[in-house]
Amino acid sequence: MASGDSGTIPGLPGFIDGHIHFPQVRVLGAYGNQLLDWLQKWIFPEEAKYTDRSYADGAAVKFMDALLSGGTTTCQAFTPSSPVSCEALFDAAAERNMRIITGLTGIDRFAPDYYVISPDDFYRESKRLIEQYHRKGRNLYAITPRFAVGCTDNMMERCSQLKKEHPDCWINTHISENPTEVYQARVEFPDCPDYTSVHEKHGLLGPKFTAGHGVWLSNDELRRFSESGAAVCFCPLSNLFLGSGLFRIGRATDPLHPVRLSVGCDMGGGNAFSIIRVLEEAYKVGMCNNTMLDGSVNPREQDLAEAERNKLSPYRAFYLATLGGARSLYLDDILSNFDKGKEADFVVLDWKAGQAAMEWHQSLTTETTPATMEEAVALLFGIMACGDDRNVDETWISGNRAYKKS
Amino acid sequence: MASGDSGTIPGLPGFIDGHIHFPQVRVLGAYGNQLLDWLQKWIFPEEAKYTDRSYADGAAVKFMDALLSGGTTTCQAFTPSSPVSCEALFDAAAERNMRIITGLTGIDRFAPDYYVISPDDFYRESKRLIEQYHRKGRNLYAITPRFAVGCTDNMMERCSQLKKEHPDCWINTHISENPTEVYQARVEFPDCPDYTSVHEKHGLLGPKFTAGHGVWLSNDELRRFSESGAAVCFCPLSNLFLGSGLFRIGRATDPLHPVRLSVGCDMGGGNAFSIIRVLEEAYKVGMCNNTMLDGSVNPREQDLAEAERNKLSPYRAFYLATLGGARSLYLDDILSNFDKGKEADFVVLDWKAGQAAMEWHQSLTTETTPATMEEAVALLFGIMACGDDRNVDETWISGNRAYKKS
Repeated sequence: MASGDSGTIPGLPGFIDGHIHFPQVRVLGAYGNQLLDWLQKWIFPEEAKYTDRSYADGAAVKFMDALLSGGTTTCQAFTPSSPVSCEALFDAAAERNMRIITGLTGIDRFAPDYYVISPDDFYRESKRLIEQYHRKGRNLYAITPRFAVGCTDNMMERCSQLKKEHPDCWINTHISENPTEVYQARVEFPDCPDYTSVHEKHGLLGPKFTAGHGVWLSNDELRRFSESGAAVCFCPLSNLFLGSGLFRIGRATDPLHPVRLSVGCDMGGGNAFSIIRVLEEAYKVGMCNNTMLDGSVNPREQDLAEAERNKLSPYRAFYLATLGGARSLYLDDILSNFDKGKEADFVVLDWKAGQAAMEWHQSLTTETTPATMEEAVALLFGIMACGDDRNVDETWISGNRAYKKS
Repeated sequence: MASGDSGTIPGLPGFIDGHIHFPQVRVLGAYGNQLLDWLQKWIFPEEAKYTDRSYADGAAVKFMDALLSGGTTTCQAFTPSSPVSCEALFDAAAERNMRIITGLTGIDRFAPDYYVISPDDFYRESKRLIEQYHRKGRNLYAITPRFAVGCTDNMMERCSQLKKEHPDCWINTHISENPTEVYQARVEFPDCPDYTSVHEKHGLLGPKFTAGHGVWLSNDELRRFSESGAAVCFCPLSNLFLGSGLFRIGRATDPLHPVRLSVGCDMGGGNAFSIIRVLEEAYKVGMCNNTMLDGSVNPREQDLAEAERNKLSPYRAFYLATLGGARSLYLDDILSNFDKGKEADFVVLDWKAGQAAMEWHQSLTTETTPATMEEAVALLFGIMACGDDRNVDETWISGNRAYKKS
């Protein structure tokens, strides 16, 4: 990272969003429900519109524009359960030469009849889409069971079959977002002692597997994620907006069993596209966890080492949003720093932009340009603490400028 | 509330911020500590600069500009412990004809020597400032013990004396923000069974008394706030940023013992000036509380009525930011709606502004102008859920436009 001379920090790697929903732009930040009710009331009806290719194409433009204006250059995205929407998203990414991971989303229960897809249709359409899109240009395919509660054993088994037949593909799902969902997973999979074991039973947990949220994962489940090479995507905007709970980032980064982590906005459960806003909320979640571990509330829960790990420094935060996220997605060999031969996706940040107080606030660190790494990092913390999408000045994709703030 | 035809909602009452710190603009969103350490490391050194009148005057311009750009037309503000800073703030507010409540902040322990003020000096300077500023133009004076942990019994007694001599004045303080602070209050006031009783002992709890935070207030303390007519200012941006905890808004609004509530940004513990951002985080805090009360985590803690009250509807949210906040400050007879004779402070909101996805998101409610109250309120929820200071198009003070978004 080098520093510019007019309030901009050039050359951060582009942001990686590990968990986002393509068809939720218009229901971003919808009112009033926890996860399961929110899906029924707001999400499925809107996602159903994406069976119309022209609606999906129009939405893809809005989606890509919003990603780029937030500095996101790669995302792992959920589609609806309609193949046409998946095609629209791959085509839109290819048009911008943007690296994307996505795939047809499977769900065959606990959703309206108009929304579910049968395991056979899911399997057939997934295979067709893998052949049509995977590793074509920068497109990458993720086998995508929406979440185990919404998938029968039959659907999970089809995912397992797809992974065996296409081991190069990614797997993208949700896990342990909400207490009621965790309880329901136990009810629906009575042979599985916990939520993670549903994925273990079907041979899915391992490298290139990412589960969003993981708020309620037990210590033992986190250990199994760590040992298998599977990843969790931390989605604090969404976890707070839906009231899902506080992800235990200090526990997930236990040096004995560190879990591969990315961050995601989880738009529309998350109420913004901006990864800068995601880092702000990630910091807050860590601080709230931290307070509960210092012994002042409950001495039995005191864990000062874990509390320290809950404190998200700007180094760790921007690592999560760039190279750390890439590593969790097994893309760190081709993305997310300036090594020779890596793909040229990056962002230029403006540390003075944003709310009215920002410029004077940042001037406490420097009036001109940062002279040391410490000063540059203090400005970056100022951006993650007090900034938003306005701090993204330019976004570059494959060496071309794809966004410039007006 | 009426609706405009170009994306703006004219005529909301101006926002009221019940808790903000004038001298913290440059340390807004500072890294890495809970309350007590954060005060020592970041806050006291910056606040000490405000003994210089020219520094304080320059800061007051930044402070007022940031308030107006966020739509805040009245605030209750803490100053540093230097009288000159209090003069600077009253003068800056008077220049803009803005109604403000502020007063010299007293603290005589647990702060650096250069920062504390003796109870005698505090008493004498407070009296002088009351005479000079209280009810001059729109200025109102608050007797301001910073927080009981930072105030000896002698300092608290001086506050009590001031209130007796000037019963028309407000009282502004902090309470039960952080678990360690609550513990320390018990240590410092061994004759008081809880934190609230410190204020009761000195005769301060009652009408026109506001304490910021109240995150860790017990049910019994909330009841005593309710019965005495005292108010709590809910500061969710700050409570999350410092990891203080989740204010129990559902409990504080128990219909048997409802506490008068305002919202505050608590800048710089809060990381933004925008009351719209405050409402976003207030909603999130409520949703996180809500999930813990539905019985899915702990059946013994189930309380569905309290959970429902934790869910902050746009009606309740914007009420808290306007007439509800005014009522908590005993200003509802002169401020915060369009009754004849009330003071003309208001904001014009732009429901389409903000992050790139905002316009398409809001178009799910209406493509043109809201035709019903329900549509207008859905747009307001879109603003509080997905918006920020960019949604404030104009701010009017005393009938004059004081801010227009460029």
